Amino acid sequence: MSDAFRNWMEQTQKRCETDLSEFIPAPSTVPAHLHDAMRYAALDGGKRIRPLLVFAAGRLFQAPEDLLRRAAAATEMIHAYSLVHDDMPCMDDDALRRGKPTVHVKYDEATALLVGDALQAQAFLVLSEGDGDPAAKLAMVRVLAHAAGSVGMCGGQAIDLASVGLALTREQLEQMHRLKTGALLRASVLLGAMSGKLLSAEETAALDTYAAAIGLAFQVVDDVLDATADSATLGKTAGKDAADNKPTYVSLLGLEASRQLAIQLSQKAHEALQLFGTNAQFLHDLADLIVQRQA
Amino acid sequence: MSDAFRNWMEQTQKRCETDLSEFIPAPSTVPAHLHDAMRYAALDGGKRIRPLLVFAAGRLFQAPEDLLRRAAAATEMIHAYSLVHDDMPCMDDDALRRGKPTVHVKYDEATALLVGDALQAQAFLVLSEGDGDPAAKLAMVRVLAHAAGSVGMCGGQAIDLASVGLALTREQLEQMHRLKTGALLRASVLLGAMSGKLLSAEETAALDTYAAAIGLAFQVVDDVLDATADSATLGKTAGKDAADNKPTYVSLLGLEASRQLAIQLSQKAHEALQLFGTNAQFLHDLADLIVQRQA
Repeated sequence: MSDAFRNWMEQTQKRCETDLSEFIPAPSTVPAHLHDAMRYAALDGGKRIRPLLVFAAGRLFQAPEDLLRRAAAATEMIHAYSLVHDDMPCMDDDALRRGKPTVHVKYDEATALLVGDALQAQAFLVLSEGDGDPAAKLAMVRVLAHAAGSVGMCGGQAIDLASVGLALTREQLEQMHRLKTGALLRASVLLGAMSGKLLSAEETAALDTYAAAIGLAFQVVDDVLDATADSATLGKTAGKDAADNKPTYVSLLGLEASRQLAIQLSQKAHEALQLFGTNAQFLHDLADLIVQRQA
Repeated sequence: MSDAFRNWMEQTQKRCETDLSEFIPAPSTVPAHLHDAMRYAALDGGKRIRPLLVFAAGRLFQAPEDLLRRAAAATEMIHAYSLVHDDMPCMDDDALRRGKPTVHVKYDEATALLVGDALQAQAFLVLSEGDGDPAAKLAMVRVLAHAAGSVGMCGGQAIDLASVGLALTREQLEQMHRLKTGALLRASVLLGAMSGKLLSAEETAALDTYAAAIGLAFQVVDDVLDATADSATLGKTAGKDAADNKPTYVSLLGLEASRQLAIQLSQKAHEALQLFGTNAQFLHDLADLIVQRQA
C-alpha cells in the first residue's frame, strides 16, 4: 500500500464520517430517539469501502466534490441500513457489529426497524439534494434504487435466507452474492464515475467488470475471514456462517482454493481498469486492499 | 358523491392496480418468493387514497399521464411498505390487514422485513424512471424521500411507539400524526401538482394547508372508526388502539367532538382550494370522502 493511497484513504474515511454526521439529522432533531439511533448505526465504524469506491471512481473524470460526498454518504446509508435489518432477530440475529452491540440490542427491535427504514429514505434524500446536473443526479437515483431493491441487495438477502441449509452450486452462490453485496459495490463505482460525466457504453462495461470482480472477491475474502479470524478482529461474530449452516466459498471450494480465487478476481479487476490509465490508481489500490484485508 | 367523481375514482383505483402490477417485478422474476410477497403486500387492496390524491392534484395543471402514474405508484409503495413493517410483531403485531393475513403471517418475518425494504427502493426507482423533466422529477424524489424519512413517516412511527401509554396533549398527538400519516398524504398532493408544473410559493402553501387539513381529518376519522366500527368492516383489527393503550383523538376529545373536528378540518381543506377554481373539484370530493368514509 503506497503512502499516497494510505493518506487518501484515511482522509476519505474521515471526510465520510463528517459528511454522514452532517447528512443525518442531529440527535436533537425530533424525534431525538430515532436520530440518535440512526447516528449510532451509521457513524463511527466500518471500513467505508463503498464511499472509498465512490471517491476513487470520482477521480476517473474529476467529479465535483459535492456530488461525490452525497453519493458516498448515500451508498453508506444504504449499507448501514442493510446491516441494521440483517442483524435483527428475524434475520441473522446477531448481537455484535463493528465491535459494538447491534441496534436492536442497544435500543430495541422496533427502533432498529425504523432506523433502517429511515436511513434508506435519507440516502435518497441526500443524493437528490445539493448541486449538480439534474439529469445526471436522477440517473444516479435510478442506479442506487436499482442496486438497493428486489433485483439487487434486498433480492440477494432473500436468496440468502432461502439458501440456509441448502447445497448451492458455485453459480447459485455467485448469483446470491452478486445481488446481496455486489449490486451496491457496483453502484458505488458507477455513482462515483457518473458524478464526473455521462459514461460511454465501453466505460460502463469496464467499470461493471471491475465492480463485479471486486464484489465477488470481497465476498470470498469475507468467507475466508469468517472461517479463520476471531470475533475481536472482525468486530462481529466469527464462524457464524458455518454455525448457521450457510453455504460459503470456503465450504464449497475449501480454504486454499478460495484464497486463490480471490487473487484471480483481483487480477481481473486490475485488467478491467486499463481503459482509464493512471486516473484509476486508487481503484487499483482498493482492489488490492479488498483481497489483502484481515478484517 | 357525484357520478363523475365516483367513476373517476373507480377508474383511478383500477389504473393504480394495473400500474402497481406493472411497476413491481413479475412473480416469475428472481427471487420469485420476494416478488410474490411484494405483490401480495401492494396489490389487490386498499382505498388507494394517496394515488387518488396524486391524480386529483395532477388535474390542477394538466400533468402528463406517465409522471402521475409513477408518482401515484411510488406513494402507494411507500404506504404499503409502511403497513408491512408496522404490522410486524416488534411493532403493532397485527395479523389482519385489508381483510387478509399480514405479510409476516402469510410468509414470515424475514420476508416481511425484506418486502418493506424492497418496496421502498422500488418506489424511488419507479419515480426516477420514465419520461419527464429531470429537474422536476428530482424535486419529486426529494419530496418523497423527505416525507418517507425520519422527519416524516418514519419519524411519526417513532413518536407513536414512544407514546404508548403516555398522556399526550392535543398538540403532541397532532404532531405525531402530521408526521406518521400527514407527511405522505402531503407528498401525494404535492407530487401530483408538481407533475404538472413548477409550483409558486402561493400554490405550495395552499396545497400544504389542504393536505394538512385532510391528513389530520383522515386520522381523526381513523380514530373514530377504530372506536366504533367492527373488524370485518375495517378489514383490520378494530379497537386495537384502545387495547394497546394508544392515545387517540377519541380518548382525548371524546367521540362527538372528534366527529366535529373532522368536519371543521374538511371545511378548512375546501377553503384552501379556492385558489385553484374548478380544476380542484376532485380534491374537494376527496376531502369529503375522507371525512365521510365508513372504513
